[in-house]
Amino acid sequence: MPHDPVPHLVIVGGGFAGLWATRALAKARLRITLIDRRNHHLFQPLLYQVATAGLSSPDIAAPLRHILRRQRNVDVRLGEVTAIDKQQREVVLGDGTRVGYDLLMVASGATHAYFGHDEWAGDAPGLKTLDDALLLRRKLLLAFERAEAENDPEKKAAWLSFAVVGAGPTGVELAGTLAEIARHTLRNEFRHIDPASARVRLVEAGLRVLSSFPERLSQKAREQLERLGVEVLTGTPVNDINAFGFQLGDVHVPARTVVWAAGVAASPLARTLDVPLDRAGRVQVQPDLTVPGHPEIFVAGDLAALLQDNGRPVPGVAPAAKQMGAYVAQVIRARLDGASPPAPFRYNDQGNLATIGRMAAIVHMGKLQLSGVLAWWFWLAAHVFFLIGFRNRLVVLLNWGVAYWSYQRSARIILGNPYDDRKPDPR
Amino acid sequence: MPHDPVPHLVIVGGGFAGLWATRALAKARLRITLIDRRNHHLFQPLLYQVATAGLSSPDIAAPLRHILRRQRNVDVRLGEVTAIDKQQREVVLGDGTRVGYDLLMVASGATHAYFGHDEWAGDAPGLKTLDDALLLRRKLLLAFERAEAENDPEKKAAWLSFAVVGAGPTGVELAGTLAEIARHTLRNEFRHIDPASARVRLVEAGLRVLSSFPERLSQKAREQLERLGVEVLTGTPVNDINAFGFQLGDVHVPARTVVWAAGVAASPLARTLDVPLDRAGRVQVQPDLTVPGHPEIFVAGDLAALLQDNGRPVPGVAPAAKQMGAYVAQVIRARLDGASPPAPFRYNDQGNLATIGRMAAIVHMGKLQLSGVLAWWFWLAAHVFFLIGFRNRLVVLLNWGVAYWSYQRSARIILGNPYDDRKPDPR
Repeated sequence: MPHDPVPHLVIVGGGFAGLWATRALAKARLRITLIDRRNHHLFQPLLYQVATAGLSSPDIAAPLRHILRRQRNVDVRLGEVTAIDKQQREVVLGDGTRVGYDLLMVASGATHAYFGHDEWAGDAPGLKTLDDALLLRRKLLLAFERAEAENDPEKKAAWLSFAVVGAGPTGVELAGTLAEIARHTLRNEFRHIDPASARVRLVEAGLRVLSSFPERLSQKAREQLERLGVEVLTGTPVNDINAFGFQLGDVHVPARTVVWAAGVAASPLARTLDVPLDRAGRVQVQPDLTVPGHPEIFVAGDLAALLQDNGRPVPGVAPAAKQMGAYVAQVIRARLDGASPPAPFRYNDQGNLATIGRMAAIVHMGKLQLSGVLAWWFWLAAHVFFLIGFRNRLVVLLNWGVAYWSYQRSARIILGNPYDDRKPDPR
Repeated sequence: MPHDPVPHLVIVGGGFAGLWATRALAKARLRITLIDRRNHHLFQPLLYQVATAGLSSPDIAAPLRHILRRQRNVDVRLGEVTAIDKQQREVVLGDGTRVGYDLLMVASGATHAYFGHDEWAGDAPGLKTLDDALLLRRKLLLAFERAEAENDPEKKAAWLSFAVVGAGPTGVELAGTLAEIARHTLRNEFRHIDPASARVRLVEAGLRVLSSFPERLSQKAREQLERLGVEVLTGTPVNDINAFGFQLGDVHVPARTVVWAAGVAASPLARTLDVPLDRAGRVQVQPDLTVPGHPEIFVAGDLAALLQDNGRPVPGVAPAAKQMGAYVAQVIRARLDGASPPAPFRYNDQGNLATIGRMAAIVHMGKLQLSGVLAWWFWLAAHVFFLIGFRNRLVVLLNWGVAYWSYQRSARIILGNPYDDRKPDPR
């Protein structure tokens, strides 16, 4: 709409990048259309808590419409953008509808990747959406039920064998929490198995866990994991996964529950932009987060590949996405005002936190390196503080308080037909 | 196992009847196997709150294993009982396994019934399980999204047209809450529709709403519904339902969302007992809740059909199921002790409550008849009090407190693929 007096900004994705940009443009003379294929913004850092039955889905998600209800220049639209037509300046939705734009921000994030082994997806689900989390929850809880009902000792042991592939933050959180569930949460609840006898393996191809942290903290994390009961295997790439276990070199390890936390790839939407991508499929953006030759198209969040001054990539974490979102808003505001463009984007690294389990975490902020109980309290405070919405924070705190004192997890509800293990999309 | 020194009681169903019987037998010299096809006990009276996004699933459900973890004479088993073999004294599970019993209690409850119109099930889902509730939630929330995206005014109106068929307690709760969502919760959140323009119809074949209450209270309920914005149609049987609306006599009423709250039928398991059933498929039990000719088989809860002294049937409500469960336990204890059997079961009617919506309810207890605000507070206190588990009560109260002051509903999260409206079993 070139003659529209108010420019139209389309933002694809209501994650941290898209939502932060939208909010920062509340007073801009713009029409904004925010398109997301879900009706909610998701606080992804706590997704593992939904997967491990500690929190309910609504505890970590809020409807985008609700968050933005008072921002009158925004039209929230539920829809899946499947392609971008740079020539026509239009995005194409799944139902064929086209939405024109003057300015475009693509922030559709990342998904999990199996490095050419998509056939593993059915047996080793990953964790990116609420649906993924509920599928995982169901799989974990059902494994204990199957073990309880099984008479054959070998098969019983396979149901009580869990593996998490990939020792990044998500893998570490999942493995630590799984060990806690087996050792504490389920205590006394079964009559034919001892849940504490479950084996939880964390399998990593690289040489250490949480490799984005300094080596000393990686070591601390490993020790904390082992104290929680996790068997940590490093330098051990997985060569095959099926419904009954996984393969390490020549050794087959029986495990009826394998979780994939090893790789992410950019949203496939990036490919339709027809611009240079990195190996993970992310868009190699200019220093102002636009794409080469198209100053009207911005890419931000996990979808954007950019190097910091120190030569390391901007990490795919929530603070980076928020900063990129706010930066895009700043560039757009400068253009609308006819002001000179802001300095190139710089990631302000405020530190790195990872939680491991009950009272176990590591923190790296500049020269500060913490591990153990203190790090855990730090992590908890930061995460509850950043949760969107007053109600959610209270409920999450309450759930955690009760969970902490009782070792209980309140969301241990198996939804869907429990006899259908391999349903393609159970929630 | 006739030579087993400790008799084996199998209880089918962990609802109010089954769970109350199990708990009342904590000290009995019995082996109990409690079989349920879900891993959780469900507080069904608040199920409509999950369907209308006010509560999360785990708020109203607790794992059976967890509830019973300290009761050492119980073995909780996840499984679906598909048949009962009275001759062999065995129950048959879905996977073919057989479990022998000395004593059997069948309490597998009820499901919704379409009175010979099972083809309506896809277009007019009912509400009995958590999966049903999440499907309904999704359908309701998506209807507003579809209306927002629709350009054709007639189609838009059809998406904003909701109908609840059946004005019993569930139908009334759903209609009242739906009207509240449309008029208050979604206010300001859409740009192309006014949610308050949505029409919510409550369609009842009988002559009044909540017909189990005295006529004066039915009238009060109707007035409260109308004040909340519900159009109440009584004496209007529905003759057809499809994806686009429903048929009243010769009139087709467009409505993309139709909810079925009109009928229940007993669990099909009753048929495999090969004993006399009533028209709804319930087992006509003896005064001691056993089945004719089989003193070792008890039937309780919604599955049991029994007349009170006043000639009216024992209603299918939670208090009746709990009382039946406790009574079965009493009969069994008397037998184990060699004592004389207790007097025949008598339903102790402690009153009848129904909620309608925000600050609207009716209460009937003996000579006491309340409606409006006072009745609503009464209803709230009773329901929160009876919710199982300390944590749930707190969280539910907190959610309701916030919902009350803000008109917000915290669980407005659409799970699953939003583009797949007619998925058979979405959650």
